[in-house]
Amino acid sequence: MATVSAPRGMRDFLPAEKARREHALAVIRRVYRRFGFDEIETPVLENYDRLHSGLGGDNEKISFSVLKRGIGADELRAAAENDDLASLTDLGLRFDLTVPLARYYATHRAELPSVFRSVQIAPVWRAERPQKGRYRQFVQSDIDIIGEAGILAEIELIGATTEVLRELGVTGTRVRINDRRLITGMLEAFGFTPEEFSGVLITIDKLDKIAATGVIAELRERGVTAPAIDALAAFLETEQAAGEFSAEAIAARLPEGVDPEVIAELAQIGASVEGELVFDPFLVRGMGYYTGAIFEIEHTDFGYALGGGGRYDGMIGRFLGQDVPAVGFSIGFERIVDLIEANAEDAEESLVLIYDRNVEPAALVALKNEVAAAGTRVRLDKRAKNFRALLERAAEAGYTAYATVTAETTRASDLDVKPLGTAESAG
Amino acid sequence: MATVSAPRGMRDFLPAEKARREHALAVIRRVYRRFGFDEIETPVLENYDRLHSGLGGDNEKISFSVLKRGIGADELRAAAENDDLASLTDLGLRFDLTVPLARYYATHRAELPSVFRSVQIAPVWRAERPQKGRYRQFVQSDIDIIGEAGILAEIELIGATTEVLRELGVTGTRVRINDRRLITGMLEAFGFTPEEFSGVLITIDKLDKIAATGVIAELRERGVTAPAIDALAAFLETEQAAGEFSAEAIAARLPEGVDPEVIAELAQIGASVEGELVFDPFLVRGMGYYTGAIFEIEHTDFGYALGGGGRYDGMIGRFLGQDVPAVGFSIGFERIVDLIEANAEDAEESLVLIYDRNVEPAALVALKNEVAAAGTRVRLDKRAKNFRALLERAAEAGYTAYATVTAETTRASDLDVKPLGTAESAG
Repeated sequence: MATVSAPRGMRDFLPAEKARREHALAVIRRVYRRFGFDEIETPVLENYDRLHSGLGGDNEKISFSVLKRGIGADELRAAAENDDLASLTDLGLRFDLTVPLARYYATHRAELPSVFRSVQIAPVWRAERPQKGRYRQFVQSDIDIIGEAGILAEIELIGATTEVLRELGVTGTRVRINDRRLITGMLEAFGFTPEEFSGVLITIDKLDKIAATGVIAELRERGVTAPAIDALAAFLETEQAAGEFSAEAIAARLPEGVDPEVIAELAQIGASVEGELVFDPFLVRGMGYYTGAIFEIEHTDFGYALGGGGRYDGMIGRFLGQDVPAVGFSIGFERIVDLIEANAEDAEESLVLIYDRNVEPAALVALKNEVAAAGTRVRLDKRAKNFRALLERAAEAGYTAYATVTAETTRASDLDVKPLGTAESAG
Repeated sequence: MATVSAPRGMRDFLPAEKARREHALAVIRRVYRRFGFDEIETPVLENYDRLHSGLGGDNEKISFSVLKRGIGADELRAAAENDDLASLTDLGLRFDLTVPLARYYATHRAELPSVFRSVQIAPVWRAERPQKGRYRQFVQSDIDIIGEAGILAEIELIGATTEVLRELGVTGTRVRINDRRLITGMLEAFGFTPEEFSGVLITIDKLDKIAATGVIAELRERGVTAPAIDALAAFLETEQAAGEFSAEAIAARLPEGVDPEVIAELAQIGASVEGELVFDPFLVRGMGYYTGAIFEIEHTDFGYALGGGGRYDGMIGRFLGQDVPAVGFSIGFERIVDLIEANAEDAEESLVLIYDRNVEPAALVALKNEVAAAGTRVRLDKRAKNFRALLERAAEAGYTAYATVTAETTRASDLDVKPLGTAESAG
C-alpha cells in the first residue's frame, strides 16, 4: 500500500477529521471577523528570492522549491556545470505566513486601512524530518496588526485569541507574557556582554525542560562571563511564583536597573486583558525578529505552547524599505484541533435513509431532497445484509437517526425515524 | 512594484474579495453536507509518478514539479548527463482533484462507506499561459459518488449542485445533459469509423462556437468518411429545439439505431431531477475518460459553462487495479464567485468605533469586547483628519454603522450609533 499513500509526512483527512477541522476553521474565522480582523489570502507559491531573503530564518533551508517550467537540456547542463541548483527554480511553497504577509503588505498597502488587522488561516510547508505530531504540510492561523505602535495592538490580539479559544471550547489555558527589552535589560543587569546574549537566550529558553540547575550548568559549559552566571543563579534561587499583575510585582521579579517604562507598558497590557495572564521573565520565544512584548499560550496539561507571538516592528516593512510597526499572534491550529470536541458540529439534525433495491431512484431522491430542504443532513444507504454494521458506520459518520424507505414510504411524513447509536433498535 | 507582486498568474485576495470567497465556500460546504456528502482533504502535493500516470491527460504537461530536497552536485551532474530532469523531482502540485481522489480512494477504501459521496473544495495549480480569467492557482469544487453504478448517483449529484447554485443566489442556469454512449451510437449511425470518433468529437465540441457550417467544413478538411459527414450535415439541418424531456423526445432528436436502453436511462434521469434539464445530443465535454451520462451547467448570459461532470467508471479504481463505478460534478468556483452578490455576508451587525488619542487603550478594548460579545462585528479606527474618507473606507469594508468614542463614552450603552453610507452624517 506504500505506493498509494499520501506523500511522506503529509496527511489525508477522512470525513470525521475533516469535519472537525472545518468546524474549528469556521469558529476561528467567525470570531476574528467579529473582532474587526480582515481575512486575506496569498498564493501558496512565492517567488524563490522572496522566500530566501533572510526573513524566514532557518525555515528557508527546509522549504520546498518548484522547478521552472520548460527547462531544456542546455539549461540543465549549465546548472550542473556551475553546481547552481537554484538556477532551476523560480518559485517555492511558503514555509510560514509572515514572509507572504510582508510581501502582500508591500504590494497592497495603498488599498489597506492605515491600521490593518489581518487574518491568515492557511497551510504552510516545511521539509522537516517527519515525526509524531510534526507534519510537512500543516495549517497556521495568524492574526497581525500592522501600523499600530501602541499597546492597543497587543491588547486586541490577546483579547481576540482568548475569545477564539473560549468559543472553541478549549479550557485550561493562560497567556505567559514578557518583553524582549526586559530580557535584554535583565541580561545586562546580570553582567552578560551583548555578544553573549543570543547564546545565553538559547540556553534560558530551555528552563522549562532542564530546570535552573541545567541552565546554569550549560552556561558554565558555554564559558560565558562567570560573575554573570553567578548573578543569574542567585536570581533563579530567589525567583518568586507569579502573583498579581502590577508594575511593582513585575519589577520585584526582575533584577534592579531594568527599564521602568517597559515594565509600566507590560503592566498596562496585563491590566487591560481579560483572562489569565502571567508575567514570565524567562519567556524567550525563538524568533530573533521580536522587538517588544512577546507572549505564548500555555495549557496546564501540556508541555508545549498552543500559540504565541509578539511585536516585530521592522520586519513587515522590509520589502517596502521602511519601518512599519507590527504585532502578530499565531495559533497552533494542528494542536488545537486535537483538543476540541470530536462532534462539535453535530448539533445539526441528521438522518440516514436506508432503502431497498425496489425503490425507484426518482422517489428516493425526491424524499432525500424533501428532508434536506428542511435543513436536515441526510444520506442514502442501500440496505445491507449486516444491518447493524450499517447503522454503526452511520453513527460513526455523525448521523443521529435513521429510517427505512420502502416503495410505500415516499414522503417524509411517512417515515418512522429512529435514533441511532442504540444498537438494540436495529432490525 | 513588479518585484513585490504575487507570482505570475497567481492572485492575492483583498479583504472584500476574500470575504466573498469564504461566504461562497461556506454555502457550498453547508449544502453538500446537508445532501449527505462527506468532505475530505488530501495534501496539495502528490508523488510525481502518481501525477504522471496518464490519468491527468494534457494537464500532466502543465503541472508544477517540486525539487527533491538535498540534491548534491553529483546528482545534478548525472541528471544533466542523462538529460533526465524528472530525476530531480519527486513531488508535484496537483492539477485537478480527480487524480488525488483516485489515490485517496485506493489508500482509504476500507475506511469509507461502500457508496462514498465525497466533496473536495480546494486549490489546484496549472502552469498555463496567464490570461484574463485564467489563473495558475484556482479553486475547484468537486463532488463525486463512488461505488454506485445506477442513475441514483447522477440524480443526487445534479440535485445537490442545483441546490448549491440556488442558495448562492445564482440564477439563470440550466443543466445540459447527454450520454457518451449516445454520442458513440450517433457517430456509428452516421457511418463514422471508430478510429475517427475522437477527432470528430473534437470538432463537434466546437458547435457552439463555429456553428453547423463550421463543423461540417472542418470535418471535410479533416478528410473523415464523406458519407458520414453528409449524414451529420443533414441531421444538423433538421435538428429540433429542445422540448419536453421524455424517451420519445430524446429518440426523436437522434438518428435511428441508437441504443434505446441508454435513452430510457437518460429520460429517467431527466424525470427525476428538479430544475431545468435540457437534452443536448451534441454535448461532448473534453475529458476522454467519461463512460456514461455527461452534464454541464450553462448560464443564459455567458458563453462558458459554470460546471460540469459525468460518469467515469474505470478511472477511480485505476490505482486499486479494479473497476469502481464513479460519477463526478465539478463547479467552476472562480466563475461562480464572480456572479454572487458582493456583500452577501453583510447581513451581520457591524460597527466602527472611532476613537480620539486621549482614550485609554484598556477602556477602548473593553468597549470593543463588549460590542463583539453581543455578536457585532466591530473595528477600532483612530480619528483621522479626513473624517469623511475614514467613513467611506469603513463602508467599503462592509461596516454599516459607526460611533465616536471619547474618554466619557466607555460603555456600549453610551454610544451614539449612526448608520454608515450617508456621507452627510459625517462630522
